[in-house]
Amino acid sequence: MESYKKVIDLLNVLREKNPLVHHITNYVTVNDCANITLAIGASPVMADDIKEVRDMVSLASSLVINIGTLNERTVESMIEAGKRANKLNIPVILDPVGAGATSYRTETAKRIMDEVKLAVIRGNISEIKTLYGINTQTKGVDASESFSSDINELKKEKHMAMNFAKELNTVVAITGAVDIITDGNTVYSVKNGHPIMSKVTGTGCMCTSLIGSYIGAGKDNITAALAGVVSMGIAGEIAYEKLAENHSGTGSLRINIIDAIYNLSEDDISRRSKIDED
Amino acid sequence: MESYKKVIDLLNVLREKNPLVHHITNYVTVNDCANITLAIGASPVMADDIKEVRDMVSLASSLVINIGTLNERTVESMIEAGKRANKLNIPVILDPVGAGATSYRTETAKRIMDEVKLAVIRGNISEIKTLYGINTQTKGVDASESFSSDINELKKEKHMAMNFAKELNTVVAITGAVDIITDGNTVYSVKNGHPIMSKVTGTGCMCTSLIGSYIGAGKDNITAALAGVVSMGIAGEIAYEKLAENHSGTGSLRINIIDAIYNLSEDDISRRSKIDED
Amino acid sequence: MESYKKVIDLLNVLREKNPLVHHITNYVTVNDCANITLAIGASPVMADDIKEVRDMVSLASSLVINIGTLNERTVESMIEAGKRANKLNIPVILDPVGAGATSYRTETAKRIMDEVKLAVIRGNISEIKTLYGINTQTKGVDASESFSSDINELKKEKHMAMNFAKELNTVVAITGAVDIITDGNTVYSVKNGHPIMSKVTGTGCMCTSLIGSYIGAGKDNITAALAGVVSMGIAGEIAYEKLAENHSGTGSLRINIIDAIYNLSEDDISRRSKIDED
Repeated sequence: MESYKKVIDLLNVLREKNPLVHHITNYVTVNDCANITLAIGASPVMADDIKEVRDMVSLASSLVINIGTLNERTVESMIEAGKRANKLNIPVILDPVGAGATSYRTETAKRIMDEVKLAVIRGNISEIKTLYGINTQTKGVDASESFSSDINELKKEKHMAMNFAKELNTVVAITGAVDIITDGNTVYSVKNGHPIMSKVTGTGCMCTSLIGSYIGAGKDNITAALAGVVSMGIAGEIAYEKLAENHSGTGSLRINIIDAIYNLSEDDISRRSKIDED
Repeated sequence: MESYKKVIDLLNVLREKNPLVHHITNYVTVNDCANITLAIGASPVMADDIKEVRDMVSLASSLVINIGTLNERTVESMIEAGKRANKLNIPVILDPVGAGATSYRTETAKRIMDEVKLAVIRGNISEIKTLYGINTQTKGVDASESFSSDINELKKEKHMAMNFAKELNTVVAITGAVDIITDGNTVYSVKNGHPIMSKVTGTGCMCTSLIGSYIGAGKDNITAALAGVVSMGIAGEIAYEKLAENHSGTGSLRINIIDAIYNLSEDDISRRSKIDED
Repeated sequence: MESYKKVIDLLNVLREKNPLVHHITNYVTVNDCANITLAIGASPVMADDIKEVRDMVSLASSLVINIGTLNERTVESMIEAGKRANKLNIPVILDPVGAGATSYRTETAKRIMDEVKLAVIRGNISEIKTLYGINTQTKGVDASESFSSDINELKKEKHMAMNFAKELNTVVAITGAVDIITDGNTVYSVKNGHPIMSKVTGTGCMCTSLIGSYIGAGKDNITAALAGVVSMGIAGEIAYEKLAENHSGTGSLRINIIDAIYNLSEDDISRRSKIDED
């Protein structure tokens, strides 16, 4: 089956199943994460107290861990919820926001990787390189080493992602100018999206929430990661076109992204998706 | 006086008085709660540290307690602020977000009900049933057992709400396809709103903030609860109509709701409100 | 050079340099602060755990401390980050949200002023009076004693701001109907903005984030404060004009403000800025 058709199928399952996605996430983009989860057709729940995360995750179809504004209290909750999810066979998605920027972030992300079995890790190239053990420089949490469109560089990065996915027995999704999604065997490259998306905070976090929504629907981890990345990219394109048409700006772009996800159609996916499979 | 006229009168008082509404609330929808409080004509203040909640609530006209992202630290602040408000005769509104989903939420909501005298409790049907002691299943914090439009079911639920209100000597507001607002004697049913509102996070929280705004203006608890519920329902209808006209989505819906509350007119209320009094 | 030209020059440097602005801020308006920082051309990073704030601030070009939802944990992080920034010669901007409302806020703001060398303090007139030691009454954190447009009152307030700036060897920015920006020698008055801006939460916080963005670009503290205040005022005007044209409301206003900052042009600044220098 062609890749974009798998995305369409999973979107239909998602909208039918309306999976509950438990998030332990940051307070910067949490509202956007909740609203994009609702827009795609899933249900979000945000709960981070150690006293309830085990109970909450057991009701959920997936768990999203996002370390964007981590602190000592919530890190313990992330680990607890993650372990519980593992026991119950509920897939866990990690967004290692800002790994590489501070040693606390890097170490926390690595600790989560050690203690929790992850279904998907989604990050930008510097975050993923950091976790894989390549020294890199992260400039804060929103900015990132720009993803090279140079063919050789891209090849190297695919190679790294595949090795990382194999070692951890997980799916690795790197988002940038070209997105890479791999489980160590299959590798997808996606060329959807628009550079202006980096001018809105949370497009990465929202992408992770979409992956959490798709994985909660089907549990085919690589298709879920692909679907989340492609959906976000297409929504960004539609949102930018509306911005350009209305001469608006990045405040509107953020709203347009949620609107585009809410209205995401089979036709949008089949006409717009730019997926290559190696 | 007809019910909708009471709502109009209270809206006018609110806009004249500009009451300060102290919120101890969740970090998911807090920005929307603040902006809708401003939009209706009140002033929000969000403060949750135990060191200042007593001082802050004493400046306020009402206190909104929302347990959406409760934690050990903020629960103590909720109780402290609530007790202080009781002493000063400042009305307290509880939004028991997700009660029933985890025992921590259920117990915390019940603890607040035990230790703080509440002017209004606003929740969906599963949250209210949970607090009343009927076993129910909550799917996360945003979703809820859908409110039956079956006449017999609705009758039973009104009965439950009245008993609950009498027992606690409070106003109970249950929001859903049909909203029920009762102080144990009078019962209002409201049929405003649109199903799409459940596709935006925080419409429940915002409704509670509106009740807090109205109650800060007048302190007639049942009219304030009615006014909050009706205002939110009407805003949802107007917001949906604009969405449909512009072929936008739920990102825009959220903005449209705040816009509609800002522009809420006597005419909107008299033409649109669908209130039945038993 | 005329004042507005300095603002234009600094905006151009900012967009070229893309400075990283570390925020320790409140959870009510944090998303808007991040998005406006991106919209003006800087990069935001929000991090508040004591274990990482020293590392994070050392990567940044400026530090914004906003006490809007302060708590015991984050106050310690603010102090630690501030001290570290001082050591590294990274400018620190304080937004003393709600100082005067509770003694905890007043004391915390004063403690920060004592322990951290501040490049700029931006607040409304009651917050600044409180910090300067004049008893005043603050109604919550968003509302404020309205800024007198009375000439004599304005003179007194300029005098107070100058003394305060001299004593603390900092830049003081007071925002209101007329904004005052002073380093104790130069005093700018700015008459941009629109009263409706007070009907959206976070316009003050966003202004502070803009100052943090400008100061990260150039480190000329008074020009950065002026540029932040003027940019916010102009964005408010443009946003209001769009609201009026579309008959929308304050939900849209908030989006329009971010859009206007994203599109802020040399022409907007030269045509619209209303800056007087004493």
